[in-house]
Amino acid sequence: MVWDQEIVSSNLATPTLFNPYFVSLKQILERYTRDQVKKAAQVKAIFFDVDGVLTDGKIIYDDSGREIKEFNVKDGLIISYLKKAGITVGAISGRESAAVSKRCAELDLDFCHQGILDKGSVCEKLMIHYKLKPKQVAFIGDDINDLPVFKIVGFTICPADAMVYLHNRVDLVTFAKGGKGVLREVADLVLAAKGQLKSLNRK
Amino acid sequence: MVWDQEIVSSNLATPTLFNPYFVSLKQILERYTRDQVKKAAQVKAIFFDVDGVLTDGKIIYDDSGREIKEFNVKDGLIISYLKKAGITVGAISGRESAAVSKRCAELDLDFCHQGILDKGSVCEKLMIHYKLKPKQVAFIGDDINDLPVFKIVGFTICPADAMVYLHNRVDLVTFAKGGKGVLREVADLVLAAKGQLKSLNRK
Amino acid sequence: MVWDQEIVSSNLATPTLFNPYFVSLKQILERYTRDQVKKAAQVKAIFFDVDGVLTDGKIIYDDSGREIKEFNVKDGLIISYLKKAGITVGAISGRESAAVSKRCAELDLDFCHQGILDKGSVCEKLMIHYKLKPKQVAFIGDDINDLPVFKIVGFTICPADAMVYLHNRVDLVTFAKGGKGVLREVADLVLAAKGQLKSLNRK
Amino acid sequence: MVWDQEIVSSNLATPTLFNPYFVSLKQILERYTRDQVKKAAQVKAIFFDVDGVLTDGKIIYDDSGREIKEFNVKDGLIISYLKKAGITVGAISGRESAAVSKRCAELDLDFCHQGILDKGSVCEKLMIHYKLKPKQVAFIGDDINDLPVFKIVGFTICPADAMVYLHNRVDLVTFAKGGKGVLREVADLVLAAKGQLKSLNRK
Repeated sequence: MVWDQEIVSSNLATPTLFNPYFVSLKQILERYTRDQVKKAAQVKAIFFDVDGVLTDGKIIYDDSGREIKEFNVKDGLIISYLKKAGITVGAISGRESAAVSKRCAELDLDFCHQGILDKGSVCEKLMIHYKLKPKQVAFIGDDINDLPVFKIVGFTICPADAMVYLHNRVDLVTFAKGGKGVLREVADLVLAAKGQLKSLNRK
Repeated sequence: MVWDQEIVSSNLATPTLFNPYFVSLKQILERYTRDQVKKAAQVKAIFFDVDGVLTDGKIIYDDSGREIKEFNVKDGLIISYLKKAGITVGAISGRESAAVSKRCAELDLDFCHQGILDKGSVCEKLMIHYKLKPKQVAFIGDDINDLPVFKIVGFTICPADAMVYLHNRVDLVTFAKGGKGVLREVADLVLAAKGQLKSLNRK
Repeated sequence: MVWDQEIVSSNLATPTLFNPYFVSLKQILERYTRDQVKKAAQVKAIFFDVDGVLTDGKIIYDDSGREIKEFNVKDGLIISYLKKAGITVGAISGRESAAVSKRCAELDLDFCHQGILDKGSVCEKLMIHYKLKPKQVAFIGDDINDLPVFKIVGFTICPADAMVYLHNRVDLVTFAKGGKGVLREVADLVLAAKGQLKSLNRK
Repeated sequence: MVWDQEIVSSNLATPTLFNPYFVSLKQILERYTRDQVKKAAQVKAIFFDVDGVLTDGKIIYDDSGREIKEFNVKDGLIISYLKKAGITVGAISGRESAAVSKRCAELDLDFCHQGILDKGSVCEKLMIHYKLKPKQVAFIGDDINDLPVFKIVGFTICPADAMVYLHNRVDLVTFAKGGKGVLREVADLVLAAKGQLKSLNRK
């Protein structure tokens, strides 16, 4: 195998590079209702649960007690665009896992709070910390321990495969299932609704 | 990344916290037949197989012989509600795995019996031990080694993807497939049928 | 957690126990054509590929080069019934993996040949070794390196998600996809076609 | 278990053996448009992204930071046929993983470039290095960081589950999803379009 390192070495040194994001706003926005787009346009922060949102809800152990987590490359690719657009991004998880910490650090999230029993209270504190009004916060959750957060934020979202009885308690059920790009879909919607896709492409 | 530990530290100390479980009884119960709901209302114990029920049936090994198991976060979240409602919950598995032991301990199950060749006989002994009548026991199994248990309990259940010839031998085929929240679906049904969802929310 | 070991200890000592296999022959056989059932009835040996048949075709590595394999509990449960019925069962795989060796040993297969480039030639030798006529051998394969075997055995089978151009070169495309119980489906068919299900139940 | 090593030992020594590839050109080509087949016929190199193409896009970590990658056996089986047909095959990935290096080495790819921020520039250099005209290069990508490559190659391809807004920017959306044989499908198409399937079978 020819490992032509000389061909690519210069590229490896390049700092974060924004690939052109040639996405038509219309193509993204036409899948959502006018109310959903309106709510997305006001978002300044996207908070989310981890299991069932960034993952498909699988809790994976091996014989020695080690935990494994399965994330999605599509979610990761959009974080730098969100941050460039000035949107705060962070995880609030009821469980704790070193694999989640690794992924959150890799994605350079603004925060990654794990082992949270009372998500509502944590979200409130985060909103004070980041000076966010309810309508500026989108939260993605998939189960009953996310309901307290849904009560205090302005844009409530669950994945397509969240518990059925969450579906009619949220503003948006994503087309994507947990672990299949839920955060990506929400990020695309928010960036498109804010009209920031084109300007991101120009930079 | 801002790891605002001061924001969340108090929450980590909180003992098990019951999130409001705002589920409409109607929304859950309308998916089942009158007979299924009637059987669910009498349940005081939910026993279940592990492979194919808590998992999707995958047997995962690595090169060094280590076994990996994939569970579902949705199943785990309901156990504390079942226990609060006084329902005995435990696993009867034909195989043995340290990963299953870890998950069972984490979920604080009442028991976790593994490596069981004769599940019928074990179930009988458990029913004596816990002073349970047949109609008070629900069992979730997915294959022929679960048939002896199905003969002695009052509410027999299999996942949507159990062997086809089990489907017409059980009282309920869940909407969920193995590893996708089968136990959660049964727990929701039992709690709803017993009318305990509202009282759990009030506590 | 109450680990009532006294309840189950006697069961653990029990030698392989055949659970009643209350399957109606009709329910199994009605899904297949008359020709397929006729071929199945003559089978005295089931040979199969591993990747894409016992597994869903995933080749899984970690950073340190370790390989992981995902099998299915449904396939494992039927092996003892096949052996009791006098049917030879073994794997012929083009790849090599310690995880496959572990699974084959656990299932107590008659043989497990890995790293086989020329599957046709190996199959021929096995047929001589086990004194099998072509019509007595069923082979389950999912890709072009299985074609030489298909030429020399009497009952050729591929999983539902095998390469599309294999579909019309085999006697049977199983309803199951690779890793989802393909061997189990074939075993159920063969045992039912041979009318051995009832006698197995009686033992 | 009878490990009849004497039966198979001679086969293990055989060098790479080309199994007959009895695929009807018509059966493969009829699934594609005339333009797609025309483009495929000119291909002398297939380059591809890894995450979301060779895999289903899952980013898998364990507690100790180790990464796991899931490839597909179907993709691997076709590489030797491509090389025999004189087609250059290599990966250009935005991420880096030792598991990917292992898989690429096992498949004997012509190159495997990882950690590439600017894929367009790397692809240009590779085209110069291998003396390839744009129309001779097929590229398979699934996300926005693949768009710069799509601009400079002649045959652009994405998997069925690539971001929706890539679908109408490529010449071909494969029937296969990421990790389910996307590279295999493209390889079958290219080999069939070039009419090389029959000659490969004769060798």
